[in-house]
Amino acid sequence: MTASNGNAFAHAPDEPPTILYIGHHESQRQTPVSVELIQNAQYAGYDLISAPITKPHFQSRVLTTLREHVDALATKGSKHVPMPLISPLTPLDTDFAPAETNLSLIAVTSSWIDLASSDPLIAHVSRQVLNLEIAYAAFCGISNVIVQGPVSNRGTAQYARSVREALGLGPYIQLQILLPMTGELEEGPDGTHLGELARSEYLEGDFEDDGEFELYESWEIWNSIRQLCEYNTRLSIALELPRQLPSATLQSRWFSEPVRLLNLPRTSFLRNAKGFPVLSKPHQQYLTRFLRLRTAPWVLLSDVGTIPEPACQSIQQVATMEPTPAEAAANPKQPEDPIGHLRYMRHLQQTQPPRPMIERFGQGYQDYLQSPLQPLTDNLESITYEVFEKDPVKYDSYQQACVLALKDLREKLGKDREINVAVVGAGRGPLMTGALRASKQTGIKVRCWAVEKNLNAYVHLQRKAATEELWRLWGTPVTVVKSDMRAWSGPVLPDGTIGKVDILISELLGSFADNELSPECLDGIQHVLNPDHGVSIPQSYTAHFTPIAAPRLYSDILGRSSTDLNMTVAEKWDLPYVVLLHQYDDLALQQQTVATDSPLPEIKEAWEFSHPIAPEILEQAKARAGGGVGTGGWVGGDGSNEHNFRSCVLRFKCQNRGVCHGLGGYFESVLYAQSADNEQAKKVELSTNPLTMDQKSQDMISWFPIFFPLKTPIHVPDGGELEVSMWRQTDDRKVWYEWVVELFETEEIRIDGGEDGASEIRTRRKRLGSSELHSSRKNGCLM
Amino acid sequence: MTASNGNAFAHAPDEPPTILYIGHHESQRQTPVSVELIQNAQYAGYDLISAPITKPHFQSRVLTTLREHVDALATKGSKHVPMPLISPLTPLDTDFAPAETNLSLIAVTSSWIDLASSDPLIAHVSRQVLNLEIAYAAFCGISNVIVQGPVSNRGTAQYARSVREALGLGPYIQLQILLPMTGELEEGPDGTHLGELARSEYLEGDFEDDGEFELYESWEIWNSIRQLCEYNTRLSIALELPRQLPSATLQSRWFSEPVRLLNLPRTSFLRNAKGFPVLSKPHQQYLTRFLRLRTAPWVLLSDVGTIPEPACQSIQQVATMEPTPAEAAANPKQPEDPIGHLRYMRHLQQTQPPRPMIERFGQGYQDYLQSPLQPLTDNLESITYEVFEKDPVKYDSYQQACVLALKDLREKLGKDREINVAVVGAGRGPLMTGALRASKQTGIKVRCWAVEKNLNAYVHLQRKAATEELWRLWGTPVTVVKSDMRAWSGPVLPDGTIGKVDILISELLGSFADNELSPECLDGIQHVLNPDHGVSIPQSYTAHFTPIAAPRLYSDILGRSSTDLNMTVAEKWDLPYVVLLHQYDDLALQQQTVATDSPLPEIKEAWEFSHPIAPEILEQAKARAGGGVGTGGWVGGDGSNEHNFRSCVLRFKCQNRGVCHGLGGYFESVLYAQSADNEQAKKVELSTNPLTMDQKSQDMISWFPIFFPLKTPIHVPDGGELEVSMWRQTDDRKVWYEWVVELFETEEIRIDGGEDGASEIRTRRKRLGSSELHSSRKNGCLM
Repeated sequence: MTASNGNAFAHAPDEPPTILYIGHHESQRQTPVSVELIQNAQYAGYDLISAPITKPHFQSRVLTTLREHVDALATKGSKHVPMPLISPLTPLDTDFAPAETNLSLIAVTSSWIDLASSDPLIAHVSRQVLNLEIAYAAFCGISNVIVQGPVSNRGTAQYARSVREALGLGPYIQLQILLPMTGELEEGPDGTHLGELARSEYLEGDFEDDGEFELYESWEIWNSIRQLCEYNTRLSIALELPRQLPSATLQSRWFSEPVRLLNLPRTSFLRNAKGFPVLSKPHQQYLTRFLRLRTAPWVLLSDVGTIPEPACQSIQQVATMEPTPAEAAANPKQPEDPIGHLRYMRHLQQTQPPRPMIERFGQGYQDYLQSPLQPLTDNLESITYEVFEKDPVKYDSYQQACVLALKDLREKLGKDREINVAVVGAGRGPLMTGALRASKQTGIKVRCWAVEKNLNAYVHLQRKAATEELWRLWGTPVTVVKSDMRAWSGPVLPDGTIGKVDILISELLGSFADNELSPECLDGIQHVLNPDHGVSIPQSYTAHFTPIAAPRLYSDILGRSSTDLNMTVAEKWDLPYVVLLHQYDDLALQQQTVATDSPLPEIKEAWEFSHPIAPEILEQAKARAGGGVGTGGWVGGDGSNEHNFRSCVLRFKCQNRGVCHGLGGYFESVLYAQSADNEQAKKVELSTNPLTMDQKSQDMISWFPIFFPLKTPIHVPDGGELEVSMWRQTDDRKVWYEWVVELFETEEIRIDGGEDGASEIRTRRKRLGSSELHSSRKNGCLM
Repeated sequence: MTASNGNAFAHAPDEPPTILYIGHHESQRQTPVSVELIQNAQYAGYDLISAPITKPHFQSRVLTTLREHVDALATKGSKHVPMPLISPLTPLDTDFAPAETNLSLIAVTSSWIDLASSDPLIAHVSRQVLNLEIAYAAFCGISNVIVQGPVSNRGTAQYARSVREALGLGPYIQLQILLPMTGELEEGPDGTHLGELARSEYLEGDFEDDGEFELYESWEIWNSIRQLCEYNTRLSIALELPRQLPSATLQSRWFSEPVRLLNLPRTSFLRNAKGFPVLSKPHQQYLTRFLRLRTAPWVLLSDVGTIPEPACQSIQQVATMEPTPAEAAANPKQPEDPIGHLRYMRHLQQTQPPRPMIERFGQGYQDYLQSPLQPLTDNLESITYEVFEKDPVKYDSYQQACVLALKDLREKLGKDREINVAVVGAGRGPLMTGALRASKQTGIKVRCWAVEKNLNAYVHLQRKAATEELWRLWGTPVTVVKSDMRAWSGPVLPDGTIGKVDILISELLGSFADNELSPECLDGIQHVLNPDHGVSIPQSYTAHFTPIAAPRLYSDILGRSSTDLNMTVAEKWDLPYVVLLHQYDDLALQQQTVATDSPLPEIKEAWEFSHPIAPEILEQAKARAGGGVGTGGWVGGDGSNEHNFRSCVLRFKCQNRGVCHGLGGYFESVLYAQSADNEQAKKVELSTNPLTMDQKSQDMISWFPIFFPLKTPIHVPDGGELEVSMWRQTDDRKVWYEWVVELFETEEIRIDGGEDGASEIRTRRKRLGSSELHSSRKNGCLM
């Protein structure tokens, strides 16, 4: 059973158009931002335009106030001089005014302030400037505001506090913190930076310098800010892409964050042979990744020239990237195209590579959290079945598995023996059709039963058996049985006796393999399977997971109120979600791939189920359900499903620091594997595990991954090790999961040498922390 | 203003009796636990008796089941053998039955199980044994159950999961995890331990050994268990004291934890010269510490011999520790006293040293969380004043400060000038009385005003002025003024003019110095103070704090529901609490004291206020309150209290691993300090800072400390550094605090050498995590 519940793409999806909003940014915009300028920008093909909230006049006014204050301090002494007060904006300070065109504006706060300053005076003035500017932008109806990120990694808590306060200035204010991917921003602030005036008297003692520049520092600063702002959804990133992109791992990290705006300065462009601005291949690929997000970031072109007057251009030109050859020949040294960068971006927009199959099908469902299906207690609707049946890979694989199983059984049972095939949970019949196709393909005669508990689907199946030719392949039509599979007593043979099933086909898997109770269902129907040679398709399945950083999902769950959820707020962290994981980052990578362009995650197997199980196990289970003390000793009155308990403890080494928000879960399944004795043994498998999916079942779209959240995210340092304990718990009524993530670090201890003086280095596992113990008991899957 | 709100000890408290419940424990109790045995134990003087829930018969039954299972595995293969099932207890397995005497019983679960086993079979059987035993104990009405702690530091999550499940077996079940302070328990399990049968096939790969024994390992295991059990209040510790107590720091750590039971094995006793069992001095002191807790742990005497028959003893003997000299002489080699250990413990109980003054006064209030007073918006009741007036130290200090101030003013103003003294917030008059005593003592003439806004206290003050002789010391009685101090226009002099106050006395301090708005109140009345020589008592005050581990307080706040609180559940972490801190541990210690018997905490100063403030500051504040653009430029319409904003960033090095649950806060105040020009300058101070309180104001009882909680406790590794940012925020209506704790670790990075080949070691500050940013804005102190 698949898990894309509610994912109602009734038709094979077309490649959706790429949406890209492009803005124009000048770090020192000279032209006042007027209605005319906005219109010119739109005419040139820009969607947005950035504008500094205040003008140089304001900055010099603040500097004068500051200098007067410092002078007063020198003459009167600090005890007698009150902290300076920045008076409200005047018309000379800002061009902004309430206007309808403001919807196309992105406001930019002053970059010459230092909110994180260790000088209380500078911090005080900076905070006033920020608050005055943001409050005024909000008053003018501008909701998107870019705020310069912190200057260094010191004082981040103080910076974050100011941002949090600013978020409170208006209910619609969206702040985008301008940050470099690594290192420093391309453009420093204009004019005197307040930081230059700071006296460091704030922090106690003389704090050491925090060491040299680090690859993940900018990300780490962001992480602190957003944590202290409690993952506020109105707080996002304006990410500046440098000319040379950093490692693939750091790219991935930023990709997982709420980037609302990509800032492309002129310097991040190359020039092609003809002198036109272009982006490097890595930049193009990174942009493509972002453009596939459910809500793609806007692009801001920075300092790529002023906005041209409408006279300079015609709107038709915008769509073409290059001048015609004739034009080029006519003007060999033509002046630079004033919207060359924009043209190029629009060109990229129109030539985006096609999306992978699952993303086309899952369009609009990326990172959208759903609850897993409860197929044992809910009846599905036809549209849901239809969605599942669209899968181009899954039913084909089932058919191939059937082919192999039929061939092997013919080998075993002889040519003349008809094979009894039952599909349990037949739905609208696609598996039955697959089995019949396999029979037709191999010429092996079958007798078929389709078992279905959903009384609505039952109607549909009967009609199919009555009308479809394939469903009467060998004369006798498919027998349709209305029953919960666990209650079916078995196939009634032509002689009226109840026989056994040779091939039992089911599609009960969930996103985490066993999470929709496939083991319990197949145990419940195993009594109809031929005990000597009966085959279950699937034969086995395994659950897999890996720790991930998924700030978007975390923030989404955090924001859900108990009324949205129909459960208590605490419970929302205590259940797994089915989700098309998209905007996330893997924390544990395969060591040998870390430094490559495409690092692979370390995804580990949690546990396995295979079918059929040994009859002794089933007998004990049955006896336990009955309970009581029997002749063979006491067998219990509970625990009839205890044999489907599973647990695991898995360790994941995280190369780079990060935050673990939960576990991404996947499954693999062997539908049918021929005996290893057979030299050309074949195997048909399904997989949603990113490591094996392309090899085992490329383009399969029926399942999204599963996400096990952590209520309190864990901050992992470089080289940290996450130890995940997970349990599949069972009682007589339901099945649920429990999970906990612990953090360790391996520490080297130098032990000074004994007689020979050589010192020894030993390692020790140091415990750094742990998540809560999560349990989906209250929202477990009912049997 | 003090903060022991509601702490109504109307009389000077007597030393309360020491309560000590003592239990008898045998690790291999032979005698069945019967009603008779319980009665014998009580007759001997024991309050409690421990009893294993099951008997050896049960253990051998489980072992047989296990061996049969292992045999079956060998013959049939693991796929065909279901997991073994332990059948319910039979009358042969246990002596327990429901009975009234069970209230005196502490049940003990089997110590031969291994809940943390990496062998799924052993873990499975162990969990069944635990659940059977605890469920049966609960059925029999026994709520206190001792559970053996984990055998090693592996599989703690799995162990904790089992304990959490067991806590769910009954609503009244109290589990005490038996743990050593460090290293291993004195007594191993009886008979075959299941761990010996384990095959390690559970954890993936071959996990390395986690290194040698560590001092804090046992504590760390406990910490993991209770965290995964979400600080369940029914989960506590049975702590075994070894013969040699570990370091003072580790003692302190365990002291801060919910120890419900102290286990004293025979081996932790010494023999004195006469051969009687006694405890070492460190043991006695540690016991004394525990006995002063609001709920002291019980003591379990382990393996100190069997419970004697009533014939062997008389109840009178119990109270005396030693035989009379005559007895001793008569029986020089008498058989050992069967209740020698118990006698000694009762002797200790009766000879406990007296408690410190603040604990006697605060009896019953240890670790009891209160909200700070809001004296500006609430009127206090007489009983509250009475409580405050009981302080043996505070008013004396005020009187001494007055003496110094009067002398200095006489020096300055000449002999004949009468001194104007005003007490603001006079309450029932104790400060006025102190000032008048100072005047009498020095012979310096004063004119007095008592200002009070509480109209009920006003009645009382008027009566005092009319009836008490001291209140008419120089002829004119004290003038009583009914007014909010901020609205008082100043003292009306005998000539009818309004004069200025020479000495302004107030007691407005809170537990964190400024948290009851002393700065704001004194600013508001500064206009009545003589601008040339006016003195404020207190002259200045400072707030101090340090990070602490306080699991009891954390668990208490965690358990508060929104209905208890009259606020949202989220808000309960966003305000400081006044609390007599008792069961807590300091995380940051003064480096040079760490290894000593009495390590001292690192408590740092956050900020300072002093009075009076410069008139320029007050003027700007006044102008800002008015608002608008004036002749002198714009002065604002808000921020009139901005000069009372404060902030700090303080770093604390934590030597030993631990969990930070919040900050313990204190204050110091200089009531009056003579000018440093004076060679014999004297200073009168108050302090609740543990580092200086004994030196500055020993036995002062008026203030309890303050506690700033963290919503998510921070796990600190050995040598971790906590960086605390704290703000005192102000607006025109209120004052509130904000605080955030970040965790860093200093890492050594070896950088391989260049030309000369020598490698260099650099340090880098590595960020490990952070708390939320807390803010009491919603519950701030109203002005």
